[in-house]
Parts: sequence; C-alpha cells; structure tokens
Amino acid sequence: MSGGIGVSSSVTGATDVRTIGVGMLGYAFMGKAHANGYRTLPYMAWPPPLFPRLVSIAGRNEAAVAEAAGRFGFERYVTDWHELVADPEVELFDNSGPNNLHGEPTIAAAEAGKHGFCEKPRGRTADESYEIWQRVDAAGVKHMTAFNYRFVPAVRLAREMLEAGELGEIHSFRGQYLQEWGSTTDDAWRFHQDAAGSGALGDLGAHVIDLARYLVGELTGISATTRTFMPEREVDDAFQAVAEFEGAAIGTFEATRFAPGRKNALSWEINGSKGSLSFDLERLNELQHSDGTKGFRTILVSEADHPFWRWWWPHGHMIGWEHTFVHEIHLLLDAIARNEDVAPHGATFEDGYRAAEVCDAVLRSAESRRHEPITYR
Amino acid sequence: MSGGIGVSSSVTGATDVRTIGVGMLGYAFMGKAHANGYRTLPYMAWPPPLFPRLVSIAGRNEAAVAEAAGRFGFERYVTDWHELVADPEVELFDNSGPNNLHGEPTIAAAEAGKHGFCEKPRGRTADESYEIWQRVDAAGVKHMTAFNYRFVPAVRLAREMLEAGELGEIHSFRGQYLQEWGSTTDDAWRFHQDAAGSGALGDLGAHVIDLARYLVGELTGISATTRTFMPEREVDDAFQAVAEFEGAAIGTFEATRFAPGRKNALSWEINGSKGSLSFDLERLNELQHSDGTKGFRTILVSEADHPFWRWWWPHGHMIGWEHTFVHEIHLLLDAIARNEDVAPHGATFEDGYRAAEVCDAVLRSAESRRHEPITYR
Amino acid sequence: MSGGIGVSSSVTGATDVRTIGVGMLGYAFMGKAHANGYRTLPYMAWPPPLFPRLVSIAGRNEAAVAEAAGRFGFERYVTDWHELVADPEVELFDNSGPNNLHGEPTIAAAEAGKHGFCEKPRGRTADESYEIWQRVDAAGVKHMTAFNYRFVPAVRLAREMLEAGELGEIHSFRGQYLQEWGSTTDDAWRFHQDAAGSGALGDLGAHVIDLARYLVGELTGISATTRTFMPEREVDDAFQAVAEFEGAAIGTFEATRFAPGRKNALSWEINGSKGSLSFDLERLNELQHSDGTKGFRTILVSEADHPFWRWWWPHGHMIGWEHTFVHEIHLLLDAIARNEDVAPHGATFEDGYRAAEVCDAVLRSAESRRHEPITYR
Amino acid sequence: MSGGIGVSSSVTGATDVRTIGVGMLGYAFMGKAHANGYRTLPYMAWPPPLFPRLVSIAGRNEAAVAEAAGRFGFERYVTDWHELVADPEVELFDNSGPNNLHGEPTIAAAEAGKHGFCEKPRGRTADESYEIWQRVDAAGVKHMTAFNYRFVPAVRLAREMLEAGELGEIHSFRGQYLQEWGSTTDDAWRFHQDAAGSGALGDLGAHVIDLARYLVGELTGISATTRTFMPEREVDDAFQAVAEFEGAAIGTFEATRFAPGRKNALSWEINGSKGSLSFDLERLNELQHSDGTKGFRTILVSEADHPFWRWWWPHGHMIGWEHTFVHEIHLLLDAIARNEDVAPHGATFEDGYRAAEVCDAVLRSAESRRHEPITYR
Repeated sequence: MSGGIGVSSSVTGATDVRTIGVGMLGYAFMGKAHANGYRTLPYMAWPPPLFPRLVSIAGRNEAAVAEAAGRFGFERYVTDWHELVADPEVELFDNSGPNNLHGEPTIAAAEAGKHGFCEKPRGRTADESYEIWQRVDAAGVKHMTAFNYRFVPAVRLAREMLEAGELGEIHSFRGQYLQEWGSTTDDAWRFHQDAAGSGALGDLGAHVIDLARYLVGELTGISATTRTFMPEREVDDAFQAVAEFEGAAIGTFEATRFAPGRKNALSWEINGSKGSLSFDLERLNELQHSDGTKGFRTILVSEADHPFWRWWWPHGHMIGWEHTFVHEIHLLLDAIARNEDVAPHGATFEDGYRAAEVCDAVLRSAESRRHEPITYR
Repeated sequence: MSGGIGVSSSVTGATDVRTIGVGMLGYAFMGKAHANGYRTLPYMAWPPPLFPRLVSIAGRNEAAVAEAAGRFGFERYVTDWHELVADPEVELFDNSGPNNLHGEPTIAAAEAGKHGFCEKPRGRTADESYEIWQRVDAAGVKHMTAFNYRFVPAVRLAREMLEAGELGEIHSFRGQYLQEWGSTTDDAWRFHQDAAGSGALGDLGAHVIDLARYLVGELTGISATTRTFMPEREVDDAFQAVAEFEGAAIGTFEATRFAPGRKNALSWEINGSKGSLSFDLERLNELQHSDGTKGFRTILVSEADHPFWRWWWPHGHMIGWEHTFVHEIHLLLDAIARNEDVAPHGATFEDGYRAAEVCDAVLRSAESRRHEPITYR
Repeated sequence: MSGGIGVSSSVTGATDVRTIGVGMLGYAFMGKAHANGYRTLPYMAWPPPLFPRLVSIAGRNEAAVAEAAGRFGFERYVTDWHELVADPEVELFDNSGPNNLHGEPTIAAAEAGKHGFCEKPRGRTADESYEIWQRVDAAGVKHMTAFNYRFVPAVRLAREMLEAGELGEIHSFRGQYLQEWGSTTDDAWRFHQDAAGSGALGDLGAHVIDLARYLVGELTGISATTRTFMPEREVDDAFQAVAEFEGAAIGTFEATRFAPGRKNALSWEINGSKGSLSFDLERLNELQHSDGTKGFRTILVSEADHPFWRWWWPHGHMIGWEHTFVHEIHLLLDAIARNEDVAPHGATFEDGYRAAEVCDAVLRSAESRRHEPITYR
Repeated sequence: MSGGIGVSSSVTGATDVRTIGVGMLGYAFMGKAHANGYRTLPYMAWPPPLFPRLVSIAGRNEAAVAEAAGRFGFERYVTDWHELVADPEVELFDNSGPNNLHGEPTIAAAEAGKHGFCEKPRGRTADESYEIWQRVDAAGVKHMTAFNYRFVPAVRLAREMLEAGELGEIHSFRGQYLQEWGSTTDDAWRFHQDAAGSGALGDLGAHVIDLARYLVGELTGISATTRTFMPEREVDDAFQAVAEFEGAAIGTFEATRFAPGRKNALSWEINGSKGSLSFDLERLNELQHSDGTKGFRTILVSEADHPFWRWWWPHGHMIGWEHTFVHEIHLLLDAIARNEDVAPHGATFEDGYRAAEVCDAVLRSAESRRHEPITYR
C-alpha cells in the first residue's frame, strides 16, 4: 500500500491473541473500576495476554444494570446472576458485588468452569472464605482476590527490593488505612453485619493485612481492639492491633473511617536491618527508601525499570489509583493464558482466606482481651 | 424482564448521543495519550457530549501505523495524511504529530470542514501559528490547542479560585518546567530546528507560558536568556526569563531538560494580595493554598466539589497524568456539540498563537539582550 | 548621660529578679542540654522568672566534670553527688544522670529542701517512680519530670487546640518514636537493665506515653509486644502496643531503635470527631491540622500568637530541638517563683510515675500475652 | 580530690584560650541574634577559638540600650557609637545597626584597629560598600559580612559537595527569598531609601545573590524587574531577575515581601550535569539531593559527618535559625585567632561589596530595560 487505506485489526479481529469472555456481578464503584481495567488493558499492555470481551453484566435493578451495560460496553445484561453462571460465553466471572454475594455466585461460577476474580474480603468470615477457596480451587479454575494495592508500582517495587534482600532482616511493620467518611448517617451495605461481615476491618484493614503478608510474611498472632463510634451501627468503625510475624518481626495494624483529613490514606512502613521503606497511597507514585546510611529518598516509581511502567508514559508522568486494576487484570489474564496460578504477585483465594483468618483473630482478640494465635487450616 | 437477558445499548447503539468521527495524525507518545482520552471519555463522563468514533489514523511507517490502528481501535489507517483530510467520515482532525506537521495538515483539514485539535506549540513560530489560527478560524470550525495542563483538576480549581478573587490582586508568578533527559545522545525530531522550532522553550516552556496566561493574565514584555548545553544541538536546552503582565504582576519563567532528579516537574506559584497558590505536577492531585493568615494547606483535589471529579472515583482515589486529556477532549466535544468555542477553559488556536508570540519574544530578547515588548496582532 | 558610658546590670546585678542556685548531676548529652537551657533562658525570656545561677555540677570522673564545669559555666564541681545535696547554695537539683541515679539523689535533695528537676523516665520501675514522687512531694518542694517534648511549640499549640475542643471527641491516637542506632555494638548504660530499667520503651516510648496522656488523656489498659533484636542485649530494642484511653479513644504506641533512616522521628497523629492533628519531631516547627472539611494545613508554629514565640525571632525563623528545654526550665522557674505546681503543662513527678505505670503494663502484657489494665495508686 | 569540691575554670578564668572584647552597635533583631551567638559559642564549640567578652553596646535610646546591656550581658553601654570606637577593650566591632550606619562606624572602628563584623548588605550602594571594604581592608583588620545563610549546615554541605564535583558542571540556579509581611502599614527604617538603600532587594535578595556566588560562582550580567506594590513606599517590595554566571550557568533571582503563606522562605535549587541540590530555609535541617539516577533524597544534615554538627546534639536533633550565627562567629573568631581571612566560607567585606554590585545592576537593569553587565572594580 502506498498512500492507501488499510483496514485495522480492530475491525478484522485478525490477531494472534484470543479473547476471554467476562461476566460481571455488580456495577457500582468496584464494577466501574474493574470495567475500566478490562477496557484499558488491551491497548496499554500491548499485546494483551488475552483480549477481554465484556459479555454480560448482572444486577438486580434493571434500569441501572442496563445503563451500566451500555456505559461500560457489555454486550448484554441480566438481573439474575445465575444467568451469568449459565452463560457459556462467560469464561471469567468477575465478582464486584457486596460481600454477602461473594460466596455462592463465585462457587457456582467456578463449578460451571469459569475462572474467578472476586473483590476482597473474600468472605465475611474465615469459614466462608475457606469454603470459597476450597470449592473454587477444587473446580480447577484460576482464582484471584482483588487485593489491588499489590499492583501499585511502588508496592511491587518494594516487594522486589524485599525479595532481593535490600532491607535485610525485617524488624517492624506499621500499616494504617485511614478514611474520614465514617460519621455519615447515610445507610449502606458496608454498615450491615450481614452484608459486610465487618466494618473498617474487612473493608480497609484487610488491605493492610494482605500487604503485610505480601511484603513481610505470614502472621502468627495478634492483639486487637475495635471500636464502633456511631451509635447503633452494627460493624466496627475502627480497629488497632499489634501482631507478630513468623521470625522476629512485629507490626501494628490499623484501620478507621474516622480520621478527618485522611481521604484514602493507606500507608505503611517497613524497617529492616539494612534499610527502611515507606509508602502513602495519597502519593501513590512515590516510594520512600532509606538504605540506613542517609535519610529517605523519594523514588518516583516511574523512574524505575519496572514491569508495569513500560505500558504507560515517559517517566514522571503519573498514573492513578485505577491503574492498579489494569495491572491486576493483566496478571490474571496472563495466568489464565499460561495456565498458571496468579501467585505470588496476585492474591489467590487462599490469600483471601488467610486475610480473613487474621480478621477473625482481630475480632476474637477484641473480645477475649488476649493475644490470639493465628492458625491456618 | 425478570431474570431475563437484555441487549446492551453498546451493541444496539441506541442512544440519544450522536457520534463524531476522529482522524488522527501521529501515533507516538501524544497519539497514545489522545487515543486513550477518546476511549475512556464515553464511560467515565457518562453520557458523553458526543461518542468519539476512531475512524482513521495516519502515519508514514505502514507497519507501525497498522499496529497503532489495531491497538488503539481505529477502524482504518493511512500512510498519507491527505487521506484523512479527504475522508468524509473524519469530522475531527487530531494532530498529534511533530511540530513541523502542525501547520499544513491542520489548515487543510479545517478547510475541508473538519474541527481541529492540535498539539502544542501550535506552530514553530508566531508567524506560522498566526497563519494556522487565522485560516482555521476563517474556515468556521472549532479549534483547540492541546495545552492539557489547564485540565489538571488542581489547575482548574486554581483558575476558579483566582476568578472568584480569592487571591486578591496578583503580585507575582513563578513557573518552571524541569526535566532531566536532555543529555541524551539519541537523536529526535525535538532536537532539530526545522521540525521542532525550538527546544525546551517550545516543548516545555510553552506550557508554563500558557498556564501563566490562563491563571494570571496577558504578558506585556519579557527579558530572557537561553542556553544550549549539548554541543552541536540546534535548539535550546534551557531558558530563563522574567516577564511583566498587564497590571502590576511580574513573573519568572523557566524550562530546562537538564535538571537531574526532576522527572516531569512543572511547578508554579502565584502570590496575590490575599493569598498564594502553588502546584507541582509530580504531585498532581494536590493544590497548596495559603489564605495569608496561616501556612499552606494541601487540597487533595478530589476533595473539592469539582466539575471533573464526579467522573472518577471517591475522594482520595488519585487520578493520573493521562486524565488531563480526557477532561480536555470532553470540553472539545462539548463545544462541538453545542457549537461554542472552547474558550475560556480550553486553549484555542489563538491561545496557541499567543503563546508562540511569547516564545518568539524570549528568543528575540536572548539575542538582543533587551527587555522585549510582547504585542499581539 | 549624654554620650556617656553606663554600667550594665549584668555587672551590678541590680535587678528585681532574684537568682536560684542550680546543682546538676550528670554532664553528658542531657546535662549539656539542660545547661544550655539555663544559660539561654535569662536573655531570651526577658525578664526571666528567676535568674539561674550555675552553682555546682557533680560527676564521678574528675577530669571530665572539671571540664564540664568550665565549659558550661558552673562555679564549682564535685565528684560525689552528696556534696550537691549538702551544698546550701544549691536550691534546685537538676538530675541529668542515668536512670539508676534518678531515685536516691533526687529524694535526698528534696529532703534537703531542694526543688527537683529530673530526666525521664522517673525511675526504672513504677514502684521506684512512685517512691520518688511520694517522698519528694512529701518534702514540699516543686518537682518536674523532663518530658521536654511537651514544650515543642507545636505540641503546646496542639494541647491548646484540644483543650478548646477544636478536634471534638477524640477517637484515635497513634504515636511512634523511631531511631536507627540500635544495632551499635558499643556498650552504654542505656543497654543495661540495672542502669536503664528498660530499653527503647523507657528511653523513647516514655515520651510517646507522656504525650498521649498530655494530649488525649489517661490510659486504662494496654496490649503489647516487645523485641530485643541484638543477641545478649538485656533490654528491649523495640515495643509495639495498642491501648485504650478513658472514654472511647484507642491508640497505638511504638518505639524502636531499629528504624534505618529515622534519626529522631517522634511522630503522632490524633483523630477527633471535628478534625485531626499530626506532628513529626524531624520537622518540629510544623503542626499539621485538618478541620475535616479539607486536607491538612501546615501551621508553621512561629506564625501562631504563641506563648513561647515572643521570646525568639520573627515568624518563620525556625527554632531547634534544644529550645524545648528553655521553655521547660522557664516553666519550672516560674512555678518556683510563684510557689505553684508545674502542672498541667509541666510533667510533675506524678506524671513520671504514671508514665512508669504504663511502661510496666507494657512489660507485663508482653509477658502475659493479655490486655493489661493500667491502674494508678 | 576524692569527694571534694573543685573551683571551675569559669571562675578562675584559667584556660589557655584568650578572650576578645566585643563592642556592638545595635540591639534590635540582629543585635539579639549576634549576642546569642557570642554567648552560646564558648560552651558549644568547646574549646572556642577565643572567648568572646561582651564589653560594650551602643544605642541611641538610653533606656533601651541599658536594658539590652543587662539582658545580653554586656558590661557597659553607651549612647554614642564613637565611644565603642574609642574603647580600648573593644577588639571586635559588631555592627548590627541599620544599613545607613554600616559605613562610617565600621570604617572608624577598623581605623582604630578593631576587627569588623557587619550586617549585610554591606552598604546601601556598591560605591559605599566598596569604600567600606577598601578602607577597612587597608586598616589591616579582619572583616566579615554577616551573610549568615552560608552557615546553615545544609548550605555548607552543599558547598562541599559542589567543590568536590559531585554535581558536575553547573547548568542552572534558581533562588528565591519570599516573605509575607510587606503589606504592613507600620513604618520602619527598612522602608526608607536613605536608611535602607533598597527594599526586598537588599534585605532579602542580597542573601540569594551571596548564596549564588558562594555556591555557583561569579555573576557576569543580569536582567531585572522591580516592583513597589505599596503606594508611597520608597523602596522595592519585590524584584525578579535572570542572570548569567561565569561559564555556562544561568540563574533566576527573586525576592518579595508579598508572598502570603511564605514566612521566611529562602529556597534555592542547583542543577548540574551530575545531579541536583535543593534547599528551603523553612526546613533548614534538610538538604535535598538527586544524583540523577533516582529521585531526591532528604539529607537530614545532622546525619552528615559535618564540621558544625559535633558541636550540637545527636543526629536528628534539629537546630534552629539562630545557630547560623554561632557557626559564623566561630569562623570569625577562629580567623582572628589564626590571623587569617574568613574567606572562602565566610563572606568578607569584598563579598559584601560584590553583592552590592549585583544589587546595583538589578536596579540599573530595571531602569534601562536591558541586560546589565556586572563588573567588579
């Protein structure tokens, strides 16, 4: 062709990469974030491991789910999630629904042969999370818990530095997830025991717990206090805990929805024998590192020769919160394409279960006023 | 429907919003950023003012442009930009090419009735920029210069605060755009006089100049120095200037590609009789404000009841650099849909020309060693 | 006098302000800091409540204490602290010695009628601290524990804001004191159980505990873990705890000497129903405040109309760590001059005892693996 | 001695270090800062090069100067500065008076054989500063201009890094000194042409100019704008300039008293071929450094093995603004003791003159609207 016109592969579909049909349960905050991930992935992480095809989306409110389908680009919508499970074109079941809809649909989908991607916390209790993990795993499909903060470039870089031994032996961890909207008098499923399981603990604290496990290692015991500041609210508004890791490390864990001025402040610091790392989600493009000889250095994560970065922009051109989902979905699709697990960088349903064990131990300790050992089945 | 399956409007196309066909020249860094903008806009800013339809993309390297077409989702590709101009389905001509391709194609497209969206700086000189503006404007189409940093939420918020008089009378401005990659020995069109017009001045400095005009007001004169640190390089590596605005305000302007550690550091500060604002693109979700009674407060821009924010995520969930293009394209499509100009928040081709006049004055002053008045035609 | 020469009151001594004779035990780090406080106070906080007269300093190493006496301006030196107690010109006994010398000399001095100013932690245990408090108080003299961080202007300002109700009901506190030098193989009294009582807990953690009590209120119970990372070291290198305050507030407490990159990082944050405050000693001139409607504002403490500030420099001219002792000694001398207690802003020996009770509960909980109630005698 | 009592050398005066008699003109802000320097030096920088003896202080208001004498510890006071010049016990003449009293008294003192320490800017014009330098230097005494910011540990460390070539070839400098109090309607000598010479330029800008010379090198030309925002004020409220250094480096210079929220914000950044440094006086214990491979690292200056630090506290224990004078006076006394010049780290009267030449060129350029070459006599 010289000066002529070519037909794009986006029309012919003639590529070497096969597609994967996605069915999604839920279309609120998390549904939007996941949908954006599927849509952005193919042209950013080019070529994608699989082309996501947005097949069907489920929600109980027909007008709302119909709008979501049009908006996010799903081919069809359903008002009963069983239709997703029955849909042969759905190969990946994305559960972005509330916590009380994490179990049954995810298991049913897995047993129908669909891979599972589920919002955290896996279940409302360790028991429920354990059952989900066991049954989905037994079904032989791939599974991932949406602990998306593992996919902040700064967090992945921290993990790589830790694995490479750059921090030496780890001595302490401190992690908090602080938000400020807890005094709202609006109702939401997040405030109900039945739907949510717990409050700040499962919603925010589970992220801190997963990051501690991802970055430092397994937890062996915990002492905790919980508080509900709003009268008549069923779930915790805040918790604080001190925990022990395998080995010598200790850590503080905290989440609250009552920290005015803290919008979405997930922060952590790790101190090791050779250095320290610290991170704040409100400045998510930055990782702070000290090698112990001098003060902290700001690593603008784009500067690193980093697996995620080549997808995006020249260095210094910041990415946002939503991009964590693009990275996460990429890993999941890649695992499916290669028939491998999402571990170690992706959180499996086992990781979801293990975080739930820690959450349960937090609640037990708050009740027993004792240090509670954490044991995994 | 009860438990049934509905067909999404993303399949039927049955919506009230009409489409607009986009033709793009260029598929490198800026082409990718613009393409992402068109693709993200419809589901984030729902409903969009117009649905962008990615019709055709032009580039000289056929293999590369074919891949770009598939990747970004253009229906077809061409290796001669004249095809875009001749294409009746192209209604908006997006010029993401190098500076020496800003003039002729943009004018030709406008005279073929296509709206114009062009990367900055508009032309390589004030003369060229003036001609582009005059001829495109005479063609009666809408036009916008891609000064995307006007569309950082913090910048828009600053503009709104300034318009509302919250800073009082403006006394001083200081703006810098610092990058660190200038010592590269790689070649690029950005280093050639013919293709680029100028170096750091037009590439980075033009953004500072546009923001100064957008936030503070029109410039009346400037004294400047330029430097080329790399032997045999044709364009400036850095410039520094002190300028005067209409009224009493004065300002420093600077851009360099030789600031190690500064990845993409576009920063500015404005001091007025009632307060100060400051901003740093490396922390683009933050605006610093002092009302003069106390120190600076960090406004996490997501906290504000802000026109852009409702599109995205709950507050504290950070957005990235690329989102500026989503905001910018939204304004352009909205202007086209309403048959209005993109001013005042969008930069027209006149704004592109005016920035070019300032750039020319910088070069004149560096030569004459005098304060050079800035006059607009 | 016209153009003549006057004799200064610094020579004639003719002022309305009487002197107070100071005897000091110890001449190392803390002795130097206190000596500087006495010397700086009179001309900064003019007129001082009393003129400190540096009468005598005690230390076991004669060459060293003789040099210290000359250097710091004491009139004489002794190698046995009993001489200080016996010295009729010593009216204020300043105990800057190691922890195991806090008890007997301070009690003896008090019973000889000398006011007591003693480094924290008061005693090595709650029992010892209780006895010191009781016997000194019974002697009828004034007493102050050197919790100098109450006298950082930012901390005092925080207390005033809290007292004024600006933060509403307090929900959570988190405080850490992080240092990095713990892996030293040098020996020091701070590493010996006998001399120090505890390690990071008493040395650093006691400050966090005192600030929590000063800012938020009394503690009622605590769950804690301690760690000794250096083999064969007798005292803790780190502790972490979660505690409960009277009322609904909860708090995390931590101290470590194993945080590379953290030089002297005493930091805390308080979240209340109406706002949040946070502080970091490495930026001691700044207090961060959010009123809950927007993000955090940096209060450069010099800007406030603040009781300490008039002594120093125009606003924005930063003060240093050592100035906390000037503020603290001023309060003590003022209390002595007015025959009043140093409470509430100064820490009495009762405050020293109460902090020791909390430290003891930390050690008990680390042993019992239970939440330990804190009761005061 | 065993358990006995020794008489301190602070009483006997029996030391190997001789004293130097200080006579001071002025007792306001700067007089207080210098007095504190003389008083603190001997016990912090032990042993001092010379023991300062505060002999006499001069001021026109007798009541005020008498109080200052008592407060700061001068032995006597005079109401006519000629008495200081005539006083044989005054060996060092410290001129902390207003700018219009910098010339005649300093010259008279030098010609009476007294060393000279004078507040900046040396004189109100380059001519006056030149004459002071020439005549004092001809008198054969030591002389130092109080450019105290050279003595911030971070600044000294920066200078050492620059001298060692750690930044490579210097490309750009940007320096600002921003304050906020300019809109006051109070009168002060600083606002009068006669007393002050210039406004923000001489008061604040002179510091920026001196630091640029100290850190980067000699200036060869400048283009500038000045502004007076307050009607009827005689001196400039702000200036901005772009300057050229010997070699290829360029720099922006600015000072203003009209920057709300900026208390005492002297900040600068230097970009070289191998790295960058930046500094902000509002965080004076920190130096930011990038070696060009990664982002900026915070050097808490106390961490460095630094000439000033051994005088003070363990690392991380911050020092304040006033300590710059202690460092500065130490250098001066050391130079006198060794019979050497204060250069290169201290600013001589020649440096004061050279800064005045730059200030004059700023005013000339603001008038001529041209780039003004800077030539030194």
